[in-house]
Amino acid sequence: MWGGRFAAKPADAMQAINSSIEIDQRLWRQDIEVNKAHAAMLAAQGILTAEDEEKIQAGLDQIAADIAAGKLPMSRELEDIHLNIEARLTEMIGEAGRRLHTARSRNDQVATDFRLWVRAALDAALGHVEALQRALLAQADKHADWAMPGFTHLQTAQPITLGHHLMAYVEMLERDRTRLLSAQSGAMSDCPLGAAALAGTGFPIDRERTAAMLDFTAPAANSLDAVSARDFALEALSALSISAMHLSRLAEEIVLWTSPQFRFARLSDQWSTGSSIMPQKRNPDAAELIRAKAARIGADFAALLSIMQKLPLAYAKDLQDDKAITFSAFDAFELCTVAMKGMIDTITFNREALAAAAGAGYATATELADWLVRELKMPFRDAHHVAGAAVKRAEELGLSDLAQAPLEEFQKLEPRITEAARAGLAVERALEARASYGGTAPARVREQIARWKELLR
Amino acid sequence: MWGGRFAAKPADAMQAINSSIEIDQRLWRQDIEVNKAHAAMLAAQGILTAEDEEKIQAGLDQIAADIAAGKLPMSRELEDIHLNIEARLTEMIGEAGRRLHTARSRNDQVATDFRLWVRAALDAALGHVEALQRALLAQADKHADWAMPGFTHLQTAQPITLGHHLMAYVEMLERDRTRLLSAQSGAMSDCPLGAAALAGTGFPIDRERTAAMLDFTAPAANSLDAVSARDFALEALSALSISAMHLSRLAEEIVLWTSPQFRFARLSDQWSTGSSIMPQKRNPDAAELIRAKAARIGADFAALLSIMQKLPLAYAKDLQDDKAITFSAFDAFELCTVAMKGMIDTITFNREALAAAAGAGYATATELADWLVRELKMPFRDAHHVAGAAVKRAEELGLSDLAQAPLEEFQKLEPRITEAARAGLAVERALEARASYGGTAPARVREQIARWKELLR
Amino acid sequence: MWGGRFAAKPADAMQAINSSIEIDQRLWRQDIEVNKAHAAMLAAQGILTAEDEEKIQAGLDQIAADIAAGKLPMSRELEDIHLNIEARLTEMIGEAGRRLHTARSRNDQVATDFRLWVRAALDAALGHVEALQRALLAQADKHADWAMPGFTHLQTAQPITLGHHLMAYVEMLERDRTRLLSAQSGAMSDCPLGAAALAGTGFPIDRERTAAMLDFTAPAANSLDAVSARDFALEALSALSISAMHLSRLAEEIVLWTSPQFRFARLSDQWSTGSSIMPQKRNPDAAELIRAKAARIGADFAALLSIMQKLPLAYAKDLQDDKAITFSAFDAFELCTVAMKGMIDTITFNREALAAAAGAGYATATELADWLVRELKMPFRDAHHVAGAAVKRAEELGLSDLAQAPLEEFQKLEPRITEAARAGLAVERALEARASYGGTAPARVREQIARWKELLR
Amino acid sequence: MWGGRFAAKPADAMQAINSSIEIDQRLWRQDIEVNKAHAAMLAAQGILTAEDEEKIQAGLDQIAADIAAGKLPMSRELEDIHLNIEARLTEMIGEAGRRLHTARSRNDQVATDFRLWVRAALDAALGHVEALQRALLAQADKHADWAMPGFTHLQTAQPITLGHHLMAYVEMLERDRTRLLSAQSGAMSDCPLGAAALAGTGFPIDRERTAAMLDFTAPAANSLDAVSARDFALEALSALSISAMHLSRLAEEIVLWTSPQFRFARLSDQWSTGSSIMPQKRNPDAAELIRAKAARIGADFAALLSIMQKLPLAYAKDLQDDKAITFSAFDAFELCTVAMKGMIDTITFNREALAAAAGAGYATATELADWLVRELKMPFRDAHHVAGAAVKRAEELGLSDLAQAPLEEFQKLEPRITEAARAGLAVERALEARASYGGTAPARVREQIARWKELLR
Repeated sequence: MWGGRFAAKPADAMQAINSSIEIDQRLWRQDIEVNKAHAAMLAAQGILTAEDEEKIQAGLDQIAADIAAGKLPMSRELEDIHLNIEARLTEMIGEAGRRLHTARSRNDQVATDFRLWVRAALDAALGHVEALQRALLAQADKHADWAMPGFTHLQTAQPITLGHHLMAYVEMLERDRTRLLSAQSGAMSDCPLGAAALAGTGFPIDRERTAAMLDFTAPAANSLDAVSARDFALEALSALSISAMHLSRLAEEIVLWTSPQFRFARLSDQWSTGSSIMPQKRNPDAAELIRAKAARIGADFAALLSIMQKLPLAYAKDLQDDKAITFSAFDAFELCTVAMKGMIDTITFNREALAAAAGAGYATATELADWLVRELKMPFRDAHHVAGAAVKRAEELGLSDLAQAPLEEFQKLEPRITEAARAGLAVERALEARASYGGTAPARVREQIARWKELLR
Repeated sequence: MWGGRFAAKPADAMQAINSSIEIDQRLWRQDIEVNKAHAAMLAAQGILTAEDEEKIQAGLDQIAADIAAGKLPMSRELEDIHLNIEARLTEMIGEAGRRLHTARSRNDQVATDFRLWVRAALDAALGHVEALQRALLAQADKHADWAMPGFTHLQTAQPITLGHHLMAYVEMLERDRTRLLSAQSGAMSDCPLGAAALAGTGFPIDRERTAAMLDFTAPAANSLDAVSARDFALEALSALSISAMHLSRLAEEIVLWTSPQFRFARLSDQWSTGSSIMPQKRNPDAAELIRAKAARIGADFAALLSIMQKLPLAYAKDLQDDKAITFSAFDAFELCTVAMKGMIDTITFNREALAAAAGAGYATATELADWLVRELKMPFRDAHHVAGAAVKRAEELGLSDLAQAPLEEFQKLEPRITEAARAGLAVERALEARASYGGTAPARVREQIARWKELLR
Repeated sequence: MWGGRFAAKPADAMQAINSSIEIDQRLWRQDIEVNKAHAAMLAAQGILTAEDEEKIQAGLDQIAADIAAGKLPMSRELEDIHLNIEARLTEMIGEAGRRLHTARSRNDQVATDFRLWVRAALDAALGHVEALQRALLAQADKHADWAMPGFTHLQTAQPITLGHHLMAYVEMLERDRTRLLSAQSGAMSDCPLGAAALAGTGFPIDRERTAAMLDFTAPAANSLDAVSARDFALEALSALSISAMHLSRLAEEIVLWTSPQFRFARLSDQWSTGSSIMPQKRNPDAAELIRAKAARIGADFAALLSIMQKLPLAYAKDLQDDKAITFSAFDAFELCTVAMKGMIDTITFNREALAAAAGAGYATATELADWLVRELKMPFRDAHHVAGAAVKRAEELGLSDLAQAPLEEFQKLEPRITEAARAGLAVERALEARASYGGTAPARVREQIARWKELLR
Repeated sequence: MWGGRFAAKPADAMQAINSSIEIDQRLWRQDIEVNKAHAAMLAAQGILTAEDEEKIQAGLDQIAADIAAGKLPMSRELEDIHLNIEARLTEMIGEAGRRLHTARSRNDQVATDFRLWVRAALDAALGHVEALQRALLAQADKHADWAMPGFTHLQTAQPITLGHHLMAYVEMLERDRTRLLSAQSGAMSDCPLGAAALAGTGFPIDRERTAAMLDFTAPAANSLDAVSARDFALEALSALSISAMHLSRLAEEIVLWTSPQFRFARLSDQWSTGSSIMPQKRNPDAAELIRAKAARIGADFAALLSIMQKLPLAYAKDLQDDKAITFSAFDAFELCTVAMKGMIDTITFNREALAAAAGAGYATATELADWLVRELKMPFRDAHHVAGAAVKRAEELGLSDLAQAPLEEFQKLEPRITEAARAGLAVERALEARASYGGTAPARVREQIARWKELLR
């Protein structure tokens, strides 16, 4: 390959560490696409004859069909997907095949292929995230007003609705989509093709044309940067890391909710594993694996970042490992989003268990404090004191729910407390009361659901 | 603080792990700003009287002045900046101070403060990155046509210009700025204020108003999400990580270029450290520390990501450590950008050493191959073979520069090679030839410099 | 400092990134100790006069006393702790002070100081871990036979005892101690002192002597390695990371156990935070912060590892950041271990809640299967089938505990099932049955507790 | 599999995320070994009949032979290697196969298999590291006295020998081996077999026996810990991370040394890649890939650490991903060590280039300072000042090597300087002078080489 100037062939161990065909063959569609655009441009610029171009285009189409059909074995000696395709092309169409690599190098070619792959992978990821948003939205719609405890520190804080809780994830995932879209713009902003090895080329190529054919915003303005930049991949990996973290939070909640101590929810048979003798066991394996894979995706970002740190310009072989890392992260992310959607689609909730937990622990005591502030203009810190005393009294009376305490008990603490105030301590009333924008009042939750139905239509 | 319902005070070790005032006092400006907006809104909604609001605004202004003047000691027993400011306010203005905390909680307050801090920190970071771009641009302008070797695998590949090399970093930093701006939009998209503890509030607050006063796009649409989301901080940290990685690459190049083996550049006295007896030693300490700090910033992202994984909704105390991590990353990034600008502003380059290295190693052999393809229509792979043979012959003749070989030697290999082709192998000619868009030809580099002067005006 | 050969002073920003005195002043005790050993050796070898050595030793003792008393202000212009101490010494004792730095350099000095610091920090960490083991052992002893559910996938699997569960952490922490001890041996295996800048020295020094005085195993056998190695710090950080991960698991369990859904345990007032109006709220802040700090410690390891990757020999300034990272990890680890011990010392358990959860969900069904295998020689997979059918029948009968089902129901499934088999399904009997070595039978747990009392005496 | 109690089969996406057979089939040898030991113990304890055991042992041997011969296809529906082997066994030998899973569970089985795999992988890793040490030792032996520049900050500091430099890595690798051995002891300290699902078993098993048969130190003393611990894998990964970091440092040096700016070394043809037209290009691809893979291995540790953080006891499915991560790290480490050995075995050094660089830059000025201290008893800081002045004078005289300056020039600065002092500034003399233990004097280096030949015999 390098002109017979080396006396000895690479050591076997050298080939083992150096070969990338097992990994980068996943770029085949992109490599074909880039080859086709490059050939068309070369012909338009008179660098290739029309005849040669025709052969090349036909040959590439045939190769694409063969690879899709699993009929093109990849050779490890040809090192990577680019050389495999070019060698096959030359085998098929002869000398014209050897003219394709004019005015470019593997450095700009692989950078272009990889950006296209990342774009496509981000498309798929965006689709999976949106599908999950829809699944969450559908469940939120069904459970817009089901009471459940809202937690801070995993301690019961105030009642919320299940719909409200599920919609929190729709919001997170929307920000994730924004980041995935930004990463996609980043990947497609600068087309490296034509940067050649690192310095540009002396051929009269038309980089605007190839950039446009491949749907890039523009050709990359600096050839050194074009071949050595991988921040687009890092940006994609960071967006995946953050989104996977959100999935990991929801997965944790599924593990908690389906535990016998919570009994808030039950996974469907299709999304549980069981035990041959313990029928109560419905192991949330998929949720646990999502947690694990979120950790893996975060480490993938760290790995690529670490590879790129301290790397002088321009191309270095360290960058070859960018693809294994990126593929691994996208694969894991797909498993996570699809599995999460499957679980959410089919999960069922236990209304009684949720409601019972929502009312426990004097979760509505804040309502009393708020009423004192709102109606009696008591300073907030003082109102909190009265509410605290009311809870203490309820405890002494053996009442687990503040709304069950008789009015006179409240009035001993503050004579101006009314029956309306007392009645407002029931869970449903407390839910309704939290009607500020973005709050948990069912009316507010339904507004958000309606807004999201519109947005995700 | 929690109503005397606990019989025992926190253990000392509990206070040690729990207190955050040493860290979060850096939020003081933001906390004042949020308090002022909240008070104005409460008054506008009739929840506070005009008189109380007036006292609160004046009190907060006074506190801000006191903190800025270093006159307000922070108390560890008051745990954090929010309680320190509120306690001081109440001390100053009495009961009105106790009314400020109406219709909110520390959970939404700290989330709002922190977003504002991140916005301001991103402003500063954007400024530092742009200043560094200008410094690079100025040096590129001075060295637009200085020849130097372009490396791949740290092996000489083809000649490039120093201006071209420096401009590669201007491009990288521009993408970094895009990411920092996205992170800023992300941080300012959803105003958490009014989400209260986690569920919203029963007070008739106007969240649009506070969101607008604080320059957020909109109030957060889900109160659970509002208090438990930290993806905005992760997005900022990932943008810093990636940009710091770019700085780390440039820092590595400075270490290489200033080494006695390269001698491409010399750091100024202000940006070197020396040795009392080895005057040739100009240690690039700042560049080395930038490499180290880039690693640290990447680990800061990993730390916060790991904290957030598997964390159920809504607020959990784990999130308290978000600030130490984020502050550390922004501080390190500021050191890195400022130091890099300082080095770039004052670095000097060694024209002869660069030029000598550019011509060494038959770096222009690709030009010959390209000429054969372009002028003789030879297939690229064949042309490479001829060029390889030419290099071999030059080696045998003891010539380190292909342009010095006599024409007849070239013609022995391929009779159609002309004097023009031979002359094109000189470094300057080779540079001029790489005139494709984004290429290293000085004319192209100057075009890019002109474009950037316009963009950064 | 470098002999006036630089025309310009360092830029302010250069000083800001370069200075380390804020961080490395924590090495002062070690620096004094190393200085004293070095001076003693120089005198013993005749490189220093006895008179000079005497002055140096007295001066260093005085400086140590002054620093301990907070009376020696550190100067940022003197950059680091080593130069601060040396400058102060010279100020105090004159020319003799200037002789101390003979036959060494800051490179070997800081490497030696830092190893000694790590040794001392590991001593402290080992003490904290052992104290926590004792706390766990004491609680395990009190609760050796309290039934609780054993979980897999956070689903009830089989009953275990609380003592057994707590002892699992004693085992983990013991392996952590083994790793901390290995890290300590690693740090103290090779004394760098005398490696000088990187190449050794021409003075007739006695490295065996200083190594022995400072309690190292031996002097480092390669001077380049001596000044550039930091794997000892990485080993310490990895041991801390792994141990902090164990603490994070226990912290997670405390968060779960103290949640209202579990109600297995209650943190003491000293180790809870509360809410002024929700008395049921006992937030496990310290446990949550331990989770966060464990993530931070893991990232500290990653940061230092990343700093050291791709770093050529010998010393590089990147290594300066090793100390901030290592100090941060040890500080966080101390907070975690002390806080965990505080929580464990004072946590109380809810016997009824634990027992009720232990019996729920047919957790003893495996006992029936095991009986069938053991007594009737049924293949395990078949026995599981019968047990599964028994559970199904119990469910139909509305019995949540298999031990409550009448014998005839079992015999319908397998006529050979005896009353003894049925009675064996009670939780206490099931616990007693798991008597294999390391199993949960109270007798086995008590054996382990006895063994550990002996080991930790 | 779980007794038909689920109405629906797992979703396809559930199987995709849940199946592990593609990964864990690498445990087949260990699974066979564990099965054989377990069966032997069951028979010895009378839990299995001798006849059943005989069938099982023969069946397992046959299965091992079939897998080794690639004749046993693995089924994804059977999920993992354990169920595949058990199903095949039952298919072959009938009911006896169904008795094998008595008194154990997959939880203890996989934990045991995985520890055995890690032990074997550590054996291989230890072998590779030792082989690399031998390769380095052989090269150090050949180049024990070749002068080269010793760098700090990548600036020339003092001359050293190439042998000394290479021996630094032998030292690092020895500490790596110590850590790998500790990790191996850790993995083999506690045999999980017999811990069953999490709580031990009611069968009268003999855990001492299986532990001994499988070469563990002892059975694990706590069954919960036995099935949920993975710190042994983390310890192995941290040892690999640190060792890979050392390889990454050496890889970086190879990239530098073989660059045209350094020309210190040349990789063999078998360990270079080239370019068809630039014959001077000998790309150090393998060294670059080692740098990349070291980053990957560090991220593998981070991934598993992050998976385990916050994971309650006992087994959780998150742990399933431990194997993919661990296999990936060991595979990468093997590639790195083998490739590094290949490069070191065949690398050649350029004596002239090394020597020229060693003498450049007044690298021996420290010798003069040391002479002044040693012979004239000048304080070190003053002696440095004289040496600095001498260098300045040499610069003015246009001499790049201090040893070339005439004696009178030195005497102008300090009249007591002798010809012997001046002559001592030649590189060879400077090397010889650094004769402290561990120093770079060739005699010292040869002593170390002799010691290591003995150690690695």
